[in-house]
Amino acid sequence: MIIKSSNRIKHIKPYYFASKMAQISEMNSIGMDVLNIGIGSPDLGPDKSIIAKLNEASGIKTNHGYQSYKGIEELRQSFSEWYLSHFNTRINANDEIQILAGSKEGIMHIAMSFLNTGDKVLIPDPGYPTYSAASRLAGAEIIKYNLKEENNWMPDFKSIERLDLKDVKIMWVNYPHMPTGAKGSIELFQELISFAKKHQILLVNDNPYNFILNNSPISIMNIKGAKEVAMELVSLSKTYNMAGWRIGALIGAKEYIDEVIKFKSNMDSGMFKPLQLAGAKALKLDKSWVDKLNDIYLKRREKVWEIMDLLNCTYDTQSSGMFVWGKVKNNKNDEELIENILQKARVFITPGRIFGENGKGYLRISLTNSIDKLQEAKNRIIKII
Amino acid sequence: MIIKSSNRIKHIKPYYFASKMAQISEMNSIGMDVLNIGIGSPDLGPDKSIIAKLNEASGIKTNHGYQSYKGIEELRQSFSEWYLSHFNTRINANDEIQILAGSKEGIMHIAMSFLNTGDKVLIPDPGYPTYSAASRLAGAEIIKYNLKEENNWMPDFKSIERLDLKDVKIMWVNYPHMPTGAKGSIELFQELISFAKKHQILLVNDNPYNFILNNSPISIMNIKGAKEVAMELVSLSKTYNMAGWRIGALIGAKEYIDEVIKFKSNMDSGMFKPLQLAGAKALKLDKSWVDKLNDIYLKRREKVWEIMDLLNCTYDTQSSGMFVWGKVKNNKNDEELIENILQKARVFITPGRIFGENGKGYLRISLTNSIDKLQEAKNRIIKII
Repeated sequence: MIIKSSNRIKHIKPYYFASKMAQISEMNSIGMDVLNIGIGSPDLGPDKSIIAKLNEASGIKTNHGYQSYKGIEELRQSFSEWYLSHFNTRINANDEIQILAGSKEGIMHIAMSFLNTGDKVLIPDPGYPTYSAASRLAGAEIIKYNLKEENNWMPDFKSIERLDLKDVKIMWVNYPHMPTGAKGSIELFQELISFAKKHQILLVNDNPYNFILNNSPISIMNIKGAKEVAMELVSLSKTYNMAGWRIGALIGAKEYIDEVIKFKSNMDSGMFKPLQLAGAKALKLDKSWVDKLNDIYLKRREKVWEIMDLLNCTYDTQSSGMFVWGKVKNNKNDEELIENILQKARVFITPGRIFGENGKGYLRISLTNSIDKLQEAKNRIIKII
Repeated sequence: MIIKSSNRIKHIKPYYFASKMAQISEMNSIGMDVLNIGIGSPDLGPDKSIIAKLNEASGIKTNHGYQSYKGIEELRQSFSEWYLSHFNTRINANDEIQILAGSKEGIMHIAMSFLNTGDKVLIPDPGYPTYSAASRLAGAEIIKYNLKEENNWMPDFKSIERLDLKDVKIMWVNYPHMPTGAKGSIELFQELISFAKKHQILLVNDNPYNFILNNSPISIMNIKGAKEVAMELVSLSKTYNMAGWRIGALIGAKEYIDEVIKFKSNMDSGMFKPLQLAGAKALKLDKSWVDKLNDIYLKRREKVWEIMDLLNCTYDTQSSGMFVWGKVKNNKNDEELIENILQKARVFITPGRIFGENGKGYLRISLTNSIDKLQEAKNRIIKII
């Protein structure tokens, strides 16, 4: 390679699942038939009405051109109404919403729009690996803050305040939390907003799991004064089984959104209009859609618990979200354990350590698998234990 | 705004068309009915078979989950066959193609994957503004190289070699060239590859306009040794009237592609599978598709020439691509001229200067407008001249 890659790339690995899925597809290519129960890719598909909308809209000749950078009005309006009806929160459809091709890309957009080289970013450990990767790629240093089981996976503000917070520019939070399934609360969000104001930190809540196995969805934007320091990422992926569609949004005060648009409009163009129109329709689905989805996840969760029991793991029966997060009782090495299961039982389970130091000794299994698939995984694991 | 944006954002303006379209939609909201003939957003829509494929694929339940970061095999394979049949160039579908949500995002991915702070980037003037914006956002300095009408808009290697090229890491080229419509040639590409090798520069050809009013489409990847120093961006937007769909690809040697995947897989997820399947089908359309499209553009171009004549502009009747690039004869200020036409005739034409210093005194009109719309624009302009 004559031309060398940038320094920011040198210490970045490809996203964990990018490499892991390549390994699994190699295993499958030699006939190993790996059952992947580690990844949270909703398997049930969206409501028929959403697909019908996509089809109708793609049949209209004028829907194939470039779209506006901030997203079409119908979709922004739908997100605004969704915030009002589900979170009792007023969001201006015109200038407090940036449509995203999935909330994941929003993490990089925010990093690039607010972080300078040498800035610091508070990242939850355990947490979604992209927070660290995006921060580093934007030139920032990361400071992990601990989330511990004994503290119900909530941040310990006292210990965070003992850190040097002078150069901290962004704090990532993610409640309901992935991978642990811990729920947020109004009190926690209030404390976070106060903390962010005190230290002049941009607080971003990554919030894609709100409606999955959670009876009281809340938004950080509902807290008084939130718009001064907080933004929120939301997504259609999990709630509407549309992970592959890549539709999400960034919510925040106009001034913050405007900075993100500067970056994003120089990076890409607006999303395919038929996708946006279908997304707008999804956001209007009533409560029965989510109830039906959760009924299925509840049944699957029992089967996942059986697998966790088999693996000698403990878990919180009250957790929310699309995963079961289990602690290996005898404190075994989670990575060794999952490699063993992958090689011998041909079942892929996500090792906790990919989410950080505090994930060591934990496993994550996804509810996005049918009872039959989970039963088959269980059968395979029984044979090797 | 309590939290300040990053330095990289401070000197970046929102993409020109993002602001301009906002202005035009404000004018329209008070009933001004602006005719936009400046932007190149194909108006004719894709072939029916492409939309049918999207609809069929979106009806399949397993097509709604996350997709691989590099793009599905069917689409990579189609791009590979497309390179072989149109450019007589072998590209390995497995590791020399990265699927992109439109080629525009590839510009940022390349910048972030290869540029360090202080690196320099050669950018054509005039040229697509995103090359500069993405380079600056990645922390690099830009060096514009002149393209002049008297040189048929080709780079003048002698004058480029007089520059200090020590820290130059990337050179952007774009043939067929936007906005001028100048075509590339095998000789030019050979010279570019030699230049890039000599100075160890990553050469990237942005190549979305190849099939529009161009009888001899060529790829820089067809040049011997190209893969050592060159990459190419291609897109479905213009050739298949799918600008809104956001489907493109980056072509290059595995080592270069791998670096880009490191960045991209940490930034977003794979594209919606039904879009990719439909894209794969588009790439298989035969020559009659492009011929039909070009017949329409040829007729429209005559009408655009009439408008250019009216505005006292000269133009190259042999140019390719989706635009007519006209030089204002009396060397008028292009920006004043287009503002005058916008305010008085309510017709939007793109001023040449947004593409750089060498674009001053030029105008760009797009062929993606019906004869009727162009005639209406002409009628409106006649009234104010």
